[in-house]
Amino acid sequence: MSPVLVAFEGVDASGKSTQARRIAERHQALFAFEPGDTEFGVELRRWVLDGETVMNGPTEALVMLADRAHHVAQVVGPALRAGRSVVADRYVASTLAYQGYGRGVDLAALRAANDLAVGPYRPTLTILLDVDLGVANERRSGQSRDRFEGEDSAFFARVREGYLALAAEGGWALIDGSAGEAQVAREVDELVADLAW
Amino acid sequence: MSPVLVAFEGVDASGKSTQARRIAERHQALFAFEPGDTEFGVELRRWVLDGETVMNGPTEALVMLADRAHHVAQVVGPALRAGRSVVADRYVASTLAYQGYGRGVDLAALRAANDLAVGPYRPTLTILLDVDLGVANERRSGQSRDRFEGEDSAFFARVREGYLALAAEGGWALIDGSAGEAQVAREVDELVADLAW
Repeated sequence: MSPVLVAFEGVDASGKSTQARRIAERHQALFAFEPGDTEFGVELRRWVLDGETVMNGPTEALVMLADRAHHVAQVVGPALRAGRSVVADRYVASTLAYQGYGRGVDLAALRAANDLAVGPYRPTLTILLDVDLGVANERRSGQSRDRFEGEDSAFFARVREGYLALAAEGGWALIDGSAGEAQVAREVDELVADLAW
Repeated sequence: MSPVLVAFEGVDASGKSTQARRIAERHQALFAFEPGDTEFGVELRRWVLDGETVMNGPTEALVMLADRAHHVAQVVGPALRAGRSVVADRYVASTLAYQGYGRGVDLAALRAANDLAVGPYRPTLTILLDVDLGVANERRSGQSRDRFEGEDSAFFARVREGYLALAAEGGWALIDGSAGEAQVAREVDELVADLAW
């Protein structure tokens, strides 16, 4: 039986990290995240998130893709080849939503670069936790903000709409992330129960 | 009159850096190089060249492309928009030759990612300084070697053949870099004399 690769996607404060960690533990899968899940990735993450370095959309995208390629080569791919399932907090779709829809970087080129980065390791299932701006802002109030969290509501709206468009065309599972955590957890549990963990 | 962007390409020790610097000075153009011509690029260059970090072909390519995107955004693009010509020591073709032909990374995906990285800033003229393995090795003897210079002669041969194939299909200028420096300089001078510096 092949292991599975489940990707959680959504905006910051959508609850995806909480769910990804919980599901990985429950199914004894590897929890993985982007960006910054390798030593090199920590460096890349620092440059792209700190917001002090002026960085345009294409650069931001290519840094995220380099982080992903290294992550897949060092963490995700080896786990899957060893028969261990992986739960990823952000994966290929984050680049399409944030840099493609959010920053206006060409989607076809991003898809080609994503293919380079992940090779054969496409998600078995992608789960989008969708929340609106009000819910996300309320959950994040008082937190310090990185490059993305400091963006305006128009950027947030483009990313969210991008995610919804990608979910519709990609056959993803879509969960209302504004529900209570227990409710979201139940829905996630049902979705992944029948996967070949 | 638009400024020009002249790219010098070739394997290490082909003499391209010497020629690029000389031509930039002669025509009061900006000398630019990849990788590592920005603060962020210095960091990326260190990771990719030091050879201690295990890094596969796609990751290496995406790091180089991120360096290029940032270089274009911060250095090459602003110079050209201000009306100043640019002479680049390595540009779009280095990724195709080294990671495409050398490492076997998909060329079409690399071209798409290159388009992202450079946007409208394509070279006016690309000059390939071609040298064979014997000449390159002789010139480099005694130097310390980075990730690429430590590769075997089969890798070197693939990169060189890749450059020659790209030159043929791209209408580049091709110069025999194994001639003496004065001879190479004369040929380069003739090639670029009529550009709209």
